[in-house]
Amino acid sequence: MTAHHELMTTYTATVTVRLKRGVLDPEAETTKRALERLGFELESLRSADQFEVDVDADSAGEAEDRADEMAQRLLANPTIHDYDVEVAEA
Amino acid sequence: MTAHHELMTTYTATVTVRLKRGVLDPEAETTKRALERLGFELESLRSADQFEVDVDADSAGEAEDRADEMAQRLLANPTIHDYDVEVAEA
Repeated sequence: MTAHHELMTTYTATVTVRLKRGVLDPEAETTKRALERLGFELESLRSADQFEVDVDADSAGEAEDRADEMAQRLLANPTIHDYDVEVAEA
Repeated sequence: MTAHHELMTTYTATVTVRLKRGVLDPEAETTKRALERLGFELESLRSADQFEVDVDADSAGEAEDRADEMAQRLLANPTIHDYDVEVAEA
């Protein structure tokens, strides 16, 4: 453990990954129909994947930058996904 | 179309479904390891499913009640999941 580490704070970065508008989502369509079969009335349903990542960082900005890079490198597929990142102290 | 329908507002209810603490999440563990292999440092990672449901309702409270019932009936499995519902005008 170095002095540098002791100054770090743990942040939770929430990365929400959604399908871009126009990309077909058969799972959401199936879920919507299942809800309708149960008697629910709904106009539309979209699904998204959320990742809550705990990272040690010097600042909220650094935590957000790292989570953004995780989204670009692995969590989201830029061809079909949009994503957003929100950061809070854990 | 009745007068009743004309007074309705479209709300988006966001239902977030998470595994309960202590329930194993092999997909999240795999994602964490993949990020680490790419060189990212992270303390932990949790995954959640999010459903954005558009419903016509007389009030935000009614929209929330219906989304809560959808979660209980279909979107969440009470044995392994916790969920929360947030409502905003669409």
